[in-house]
Amino acid sequence: MLKLVIGNKNYSSWSMRPWLALRANNIPFEEVFIPLYTDQADKDRILSFSKAGKVPTLIDGDVTVWDSLAIIEYLAERFPEAKLWPADRAARAHARAISAEMHSGFMPLRNECGMNLHRPIRAVALSDDARANVARIQDIWAECHARYGKQGPFLFGAFSAADAMYAPVVHRFRTYAIPVKAEAQHYVDAMMQLPAFQEWTRDGVAETLRIARFEDV
Amino acid sequence: MLKLVIGNKNYSSWSMRPWLALRANNIPFEEVFIPLYTDQADKDRILSFSKAGKVPTLIDGDVTVWDSLAIIEYLAERFPEAKLWPADRAARAHARAISAEMHSGFMPLRNECGMNLHRPIRAVALSDDARANVARIQDIWAECHARYGKQGPFLFGAFSAADAMYAPVVHRFRTYAIPVKAEAQHYVDAMMQLPAFQEWTRDGVAETLRIARFEDV
Repeated sequence: MLKLVIGNKNYSSWSMRPWLALRANNIPFEEVFIPLYTDQADKDRILSFSKAGKVPTLIDGDVTVWDSLAIIEYLAERFPEAKLWPADRAARAHARAISAEMHSGFMPLRNECGMNLHRPIRAVALSDDARANVARIQDIWAECHARYGKQGPFLFGAFSAADAMYAPVVHRFRTYAIPVKAEAQHYVDAMMQLPAFQEWTRDGVAETLRIARFEDV
Repeated sequence: MLKLVIGNKNYSSWSMRPWLALRANNIPFEEVFIPLYTDQADKDRILSFSKAGKVPTLIDGDVTVWDSLAIIEYLAERFPEAKLWPADRAARAHARAISAEMHSGFMPLRNECGMNLHRPIRAVALSDDARANVARIQDIWAECHARYGKQGPFLFGAFSAADAMYAPVVHRFRTYAIPVKAEAQHYVDAMMQLPAFQEWTRDGVAETLRIARFEDV
């Protein structure tokens, strides 16, 4: 069976992405939990799975894939019936572009509003760059809704890899009380109703581990 | 014909990646050059191609793809004969993992050693994090050489998308006089001999535009 090595569900937005791609498509897998930022033994345990020393890592027999986006590309090939990328060529290119934009970008927002599911909802003062990130993400969601909204409630109609990539942002917007414009709100609502999203969230909130430096914000 | 919107060849490592994937495979394309960090008119020109406001962007008829890695995935599908990803499933997963690792990581090295082809070769004092990046990248190259070296001089034998992703690092190591261990040196040599790599380098060095804040390092 597939094994997915993940970090704390409360904090690890990168772990959430491939986990959601699997669970939302009912693909069976074993979850291997390694708490983040604890002691050397845990770091060594991550390194025993992936030389990049990072979660998430997927193990499928003799194949090891690390990095959320590479795992998702692997799953898209391995489970074509899950239709992780849209079937239409232009839509697929669009989905990959916004997924890659999430993968390599939005640092200011990621740094200032780390995913922290159990954090009390409270606004923070955002930098100009983080506010530009918020606007860009909501534009991405609104544009997808305008183009593909008739096909379903997710970015490209049905749930896709792009949704797995953007799911943690829904939590960030909620936890840091960031206003969502009307054309993007429908997407937040759709994600909050997704059973796999709800399951991850419940599990994360139930965790008792606290990482002090992620709790100050 | 395909259009690839790129920034300064001297500085834009992200532009270099899909350009190299195209040129090394003799795929015809039109190059659209927009100088980076100049005035609002240039920024608007980038935005006219891509709402993400970033280079590189690929235009293929009615399809627009931005972000280097998404463009490379698009090209891999569009030109299967170029074999941008390795044919073997495990090798392909490995190639995608290290490409994604480059795409989202190695910030300290990227910040401290920006690509700057015309910069006189000179060492700089690197942070511990940047030195860890250097070691990790050389480990990646050495591991690929150990596994796939018999199939050819590039990371997975023949030139692949992973080489397009790591090519700019070869320039960084050279320009900042960063020592390369023996097991990784073969890769530097192979890249320096690739005609497409040499062509980009010549074009970049010939550019006369200077961006002051990238020249201080």
